[in-house]
Amino acid sequence: MSTRSSHQVVPPDGAPSASPDVIVAGAGLIGLVTAWRAARLGLRVTVVAPDEPGAASGVAAGMLTPATEAAFGEEPLTRFGLRSQERYPGFLSELAEDTAIDPGYRAEGTLQVAFDPDDLAVLTELMELRDRLGAKTERLTSRECRRLEPMLAPSVRGGVLAPDDHSVDPRRLAAALRAAAAERGAVFVADRVERVVTAGGAARGVRLGGGGTLSAGQVVLAAGAWTSLIAGPPAGTVPALRPVKGQLLRLRAPRGAEPVVTRTVRGLVRGAPVYLVPRADGEVVLGATQEEMGFDARLTVGGVWEILRDARELVPGITELEIAESCVGLRPGAPDNEPLLGPTRLPGLHLATGHFRHGVLFAPATGDAMAEALTTGRLPEHARRFAADRELRVPAGSEGVEEQWT
Amino acid sequence: MSTRSSHQVVPPDGAPSASPDVIVAGAGLIGLVTAWRAARLGLRVTVVAPDEPGAASGVAAGMLTPATEAAFGEEPLTRFGLRSQERYPGFLSELAEDTAIDPGYRAEGTLQVAFDPDDLAVLTELMELRDRLGAKTERLTSRECRRLEPMLAPSVRGGVLAPDDHSVDPRRLAAALRAAAAERGAVFVADRVERVVTAGGAARGVRLGGGGTLSAGQVVLAAGAWTSLIAGPPAGTVPALRPVKGQLLRLRAPRGAEPVVTRTVRGLVRGAPVYLVPRADGEVVLGATQEEMGFDARLTVGGVWEILRDARELVPGITELEIAESCVGLRPGAPDNEPLLGPTRLPGLHLATGHFRHGVLFAPATGDAMAEALTTGRLPEHARRFAADRELRVPAGSEGVEEQWT
Repeated sequence: MSTRSSHQVVPPDGAPSASPDVIVAGAGLIGLVTAWRAARLGLRVTVVAPDEPGAASGVAAGMLTPATEAAFGEEPLTRFGLRSQERYPGFLSELAEDTAIDPGYRAEGTLQVAFDPDDLAVLTELMELRDRLGAKTERLTSRECRRLEPMLAPSVRGGVLAPDDHSVDPRRLAAALRAAAAERGAVFVADRVERVVTAGGAARGVRLGGGGTLSAGQVVLAAGAWTSLIAGPPAGTVPALRPVKGQLLRLRAPRGAEPVVTRTVRGLVRGAPVYLVPRADGEVVLGATQEEMGFDARLTVGGVWEILRDARELVPGITELEIAESCVGLRPGAPDNEPLLGPTRLPGLHLATGHFRHGVLFAPATGDAMAEALTTGRLPEHARRFAADRELRVPAGSEGVEEQWT
Repeated sequence: MSTRSSHQVVPPDGAPSASPDVIVAGAGLIGLVTAWRAARLGLRVTVVAPDEPGAASGVAAGMLTPATEAAFGEEPLTRFGLRSQERYPGFLSELAEDTAIDPGYRAEGTLQVAFDPDDLAVLTELMELRDRLGAKTERLTSRECRRLEPMLAPSVRGGVLAPDDHSVDPRRLAAALRAAAAERGAVFVADRVERVVTAGGAARGVRLGGGGTLSAGQVVLAAGAWTSLIAGPPAGTVPALRPVKGQLLRLRAPRGAEPVVTRTVRGLVRGAPVYLVPRADGEVVLGATQEEMGFDARLTVGGVWEILRDARELVPGITELEIAESCVGLRPGAPDNEPLLGPTRLPGLHLATGHFRHGVLFAPATGDAMAEALTTGRLPEHARRFAADRELRVPAGSEGVEEQWT
């Protein structure tokens, strides 16, 4: 995670010699992509984050699957996701100009399968929604599903193939974005932003956990579920983010074994979503729970058991695989479960958070939108629904979140 | 794990200044208890083992449960276990003379429960065997079981209470034995025994992985499942040990929460054994699989899933607990599944291995028997069935191992 310029020392009680144009608080995917895109446009960027992987980014499975994720009531998210999905190949080409780190992009499509007749009925309903949104999916029989993925349980009732729903390795993508941002001159400070410093009714910089301060014309808070814990902004400026816990497992196949799945396989098992995302190195990511437990990052019996139970129903062959790692991530959820992007009501202060379970998919579109906001002061038209200073639309009766297709 | 005398340096190509009386290869519970008991009798002992916890000892749950472990065809093991169980309190008092480390002994007894009518029938049959062997158990109704352990599933059919089946914390016991052995003058060498050095038809010492050699009048191989991989002894001297894999999980309750079980709870769930062993610090050990996979120490989907499934059937409340650790241990199994103790056909060479899933329970009886063998040349009468130089009785048609009540 070290970069050429990551060792800048901030004087404990003064500003560094040259103030950056933008300070980004947070080095998860969203903070990193914001930094990189802004730096590519010529802005001087400093990223402030503890030397730990992003809480959600380091855990995420990396599905780029707006079609198979589309759900009723989330149409704006699907549209933004489809835009970001379309942007991915170009985005990765540009990334490759700035770093040799391979982000592990896989373009085999995604197979979504139903375990029982009720699950199949849900899939059928969703196909209509997806067609309407322009998300390409293709109905498959049980036999066709198993022709694509021979290790699927014979009991699988049928499914859909989403040929454009791909995947990336979020840990590699984060490493690539960090290197690319550094290549474009971004400076990394290994500290925590404790407070936004304001003066004259505007954000002027940040105070660090280590005690120093750092000044800049613009500040972007991109600290995931922790964003609203940063002190300083006037009440009402930063909506409360809530952590949505996800537990997942990383499996490893024995060397030389046939892969248990050759593309991302998502399933509905008695109404519960589960997925298997394969990587080139034989790893398979299994996930994920969705729990509203506050800042609780404990791996639990219930979480692990549910994931294993449902994944085994779809692909019994995983039984022989090694559990190489178990992870817990905290996704940032805004009150209306939509991203919070761009300028806030406090001049100079931007947000880039609230990506919930869509952070990896939305990274390119968010990076572009944030870079535009930081250079022009306005989000692009298509991203304005997610403006950080919007009136929040909290869906009636939904404190939590629709459980399906997470 | 460091002790006062653990840093003796062995000259790479010569013997240390004063040769010990006994070299013990292995610092799992069996190697340590052998070293401590021999040192207490005045022998100069050197223990040679890599600075890693014993492969099975560091994983074991620590049940001291000969009554609830008794199985048809294993009567000699049960008798040895009952003797060792009776010895435990005195053994721990003696240990307390030599170290202040608390081995975490818990004397609340063990509750063994049946999940379905077939499981209950098995328990009933076993009660007769246990009575015959003098292992105390008491039949309980479902309601009585739940009075003792209120978190048990209402569906539990009934069970037995074994008031003398207790538990110990094997990691603490290993630390205590190591400290006690050091207190009695045992020397620890952090290296691997590569070969037994023989001359004139007798064992004369060992060759270390690091290159040096160490001489002694007697050598004890106590390297668990790895014992028969040590080179040097003539063919047929050391029976082939096979590793029997066990996967288990260590759960942790939130601070201040009611314990999910207050004593060891063993269960039969549709014929499969499972157990929960509580510790004073809120940890609950869940186990364990029994798999014949060679030297394969991978945590697997199938192993974890089975343990969680069966334990949840008995005590649904574990669902909320944290999985603090997952472990894999390799138990040493002799061809007839009984321990291998004392002198071999090679003069000067002893074995102390083959304890399979009974190492923690058998530690006191094994320590006493080995100390007697090392000082008198003979095992005590009651341990002679397990003599390392016996003709091996391999049960007909049982390459593997009875799965019940492991």
